[in-house]
Amino acid sequence: MSLRSEIAEQPRVVARLLVAGAPRARAIARRLAGAAHVTVAARGSSDNAATYGKYLFEARAGLVTALAAPSVVTLYASPPAFAGGAVIGISQSGAAPDVAEVLAAARREGAFTAAITNRASSRVGRAAAQVLPLGAGPERSIAATKTYTATCAALALIASATAAARGRQALRLDGVVAALEEAVAAAPATARLARAVGRADALVVLGRGFAFAAALETALKVKELARIWAEPYSTADVRHGPIALIEAGTPVLLLAARGATAPDALATIASAQRRGARVLAITDDELVARRADDAVLLRTEIAEELAPIALVVAGQHLAAELARRRGCDPDRPPGLTKVTRTR
Amino acid sequence: MSLRSEIAEQPRVVARLLVAGAPRARAIARRLAGAAHVTVAARGSSDNAATYGKYLFEARAGLVTALAAPSVVTLYASPPAFAGGAVIGISQSGAAPDVAEVLAAARREGAFTAAITNRASSRVGRAAAQVLPLGAGPERSIAATKTYTATCAALALIASATAAARGRQALRLDGVVAALEEAVAAAPATARLARAVGRADALVVLGRGFAFAAALETALKVKELARIWAEPYSTADVRHGPIALIEAGTPVLLLAARGATAPDALATIASAQRRGARVLAITDDELVARRADDAVLLRTEIAEELAPIALVVAGQHLAAELARRRGCDPDRPPGLTKVTRTR
Repeated sequence: MSLRSEIAEQPRVVARLLVAGAPRARAIARRLAGAAHVTVAARGSSDNAATYGKYLFEARAGLVTALAAPSVVTLYASPPAFAGGAVIGISQSGAAPDVAEVLAAARREGAFTAAITNRASSRVGRAAAQVLPLGAGPERSIAATKTYTATCAALALIASATAAARGRQALRLDGVVAALEEAVAAAPATARLARAVGRADALVVLGRGFAFAAALETALKVKELARIWAEPYSTADVRHGPIALIEAGTPVLLLAARGATAPDALATIASAQRRGARVLAITDDELVARRADDAVLLRTEIAEELAPIALVVAGQHLAAELARRRGCDPDRPPGLTKVTRTR
Repeated sequence: MSLRSEIAEQPRVVARLLVAGAPRARAIARRLAGAAHVTVAARGSSDNAATYGKYLFEARAGLVTALAAPSVVTLYASPPAFAGGAVIGISQSGAAPDVAEVLAAARREGAFTAAITNRASSRVGRAAAQVLPLGAGPERSIAATKTYTATCAALALIASATAAARGRQALRLDGVVAALEEAVAAAPATARLARAVGRADALVVLGRGFAFAAALETALKVKELARIWAEPYSTADVRHGPIALIEAGTPVLLLAARGATAPDALATIASAQRRGARVLAITDDELVARRADDAVLLRTEIAEELAPIALVVAGQHLAAELARRRGCDPDRPPGLTKVTRTR
């Protein structure tokens, strides 16, 4: 089936991108380094990657970063003053009209624009001044997997080069491919998590900081593929209301990277368990794995900023396995199409 | 019960704020008008108001606006370059440590800072250079209602004055109080929607543009008060995957304002109905109300930008009524506290 083979392709796709994409990423970074602010325009899975990019650009490159509200451009025809800033559009197919329109509006205003897409000759690719092509090859399954992790890797390349151009520390990207291989090999462990989810019709998916985007994307994959109400939250936001839904037996999936958010992850596990929830973790932090009721522990050697690229691969496995257990065809989720055109 | 009386207080609270808050809003706007970008820091309901503010600041005041990722400051200790921009912190209690820390980081860097809070002497209030106090009086019920609409009104005041200071058109705020009164009086109609939701344990809540925040906030209220899995989406994003969850009998709640997003609302109704969903609408657009399977139609005379402040009041009514029908105490949702402190 194409979903499983595309999940397995990810280490190779990202390895190629980290080499082939580096010169373009540096060219984009030279322009971003002088921008007053960054806006990232995207939809669906690409918007989850954009959230990951926001954390990288803010915390590592030091640039205030907004996620675009495309309707401001497309429906209200009233774009904000993009001049002096930069806009990055993300679309795996490159066909997203709203993303192309945001790029066009920014370019008319003289802002620097860049696109990250799997089709450089697409509408989104043509709308931007510079393009970083993903080179992920055709993605046949409707749910994005390799284009998602490739987009995250592209954002990490750009953010790292931008940090360097701004006199900040670059990211060490060399462990990413090994971490992805480790995550691809974790399929049996994720099957165990899928059994623990059992017949539950709802799932709370949590993450924080750099790993928040991995929670967003895993929840989307679980919804698309297994048709389970998987709702994502930051571990901070869940305490502002949604925790009311966590009760005895609710499965809670936590994506947690080793590092600064670990104390928060441990506190979240304890408070969810006090409410009677079963906490399942996808993590590269041994203590988090131990405290959770069940866990996929990835042995990675990468920095907290980059771990989410591997964590999400285990999330893809989990979504595919949940789909299989529920008799859903993971290659053809009902009612979805590969290319979604919204304005 | 305090929730119902606080819902009913909203026209009075907002009427007072629109007068008493205007001078401070203008003072804040004078500083915002020259900012290169705006960041809004908030959690929970206040973060939903921040989303509303983002649309107002971008589409009406023309300022690129980011929602803060507080962990960038609190956990990673690596704030982006706020200098040259402005940061607005929102916290009804004023006790949110993360919001205060983002304001403090921005202020250290020389960025203009403002706070919107119901307690000007609070930690968040003291952290900012200028404060717009909500003056909403004590809010006793755990779920925010009057502080939410007051915060939205405060953001509209500031955005309107900022637009004027930047040579753009100000908002006409004078119909807001009448629209709120209309929405408060709509309780019987929202009880009908609650009956239509019936025993469903999940609810998709949709909105777009200025009304997207009203969908976010209504979903949060339904979760907190009635413990139903209410998941919010923009009508654009729902087509990128989550629509897989909408099937025969799924209740879909649509919050739609009359104006530029109406064609999108009508298309969404049609596509959800084709999937067998029952679409319930809260709207001030007659055609949207007619096409939905059931609707609360508010007779308002206000602009699309402002309608969401009234739409959300009907959403509060609906959440309270769903709670009542399920035997939940809307004044004391289990596991929640009035003041949530997260870093």
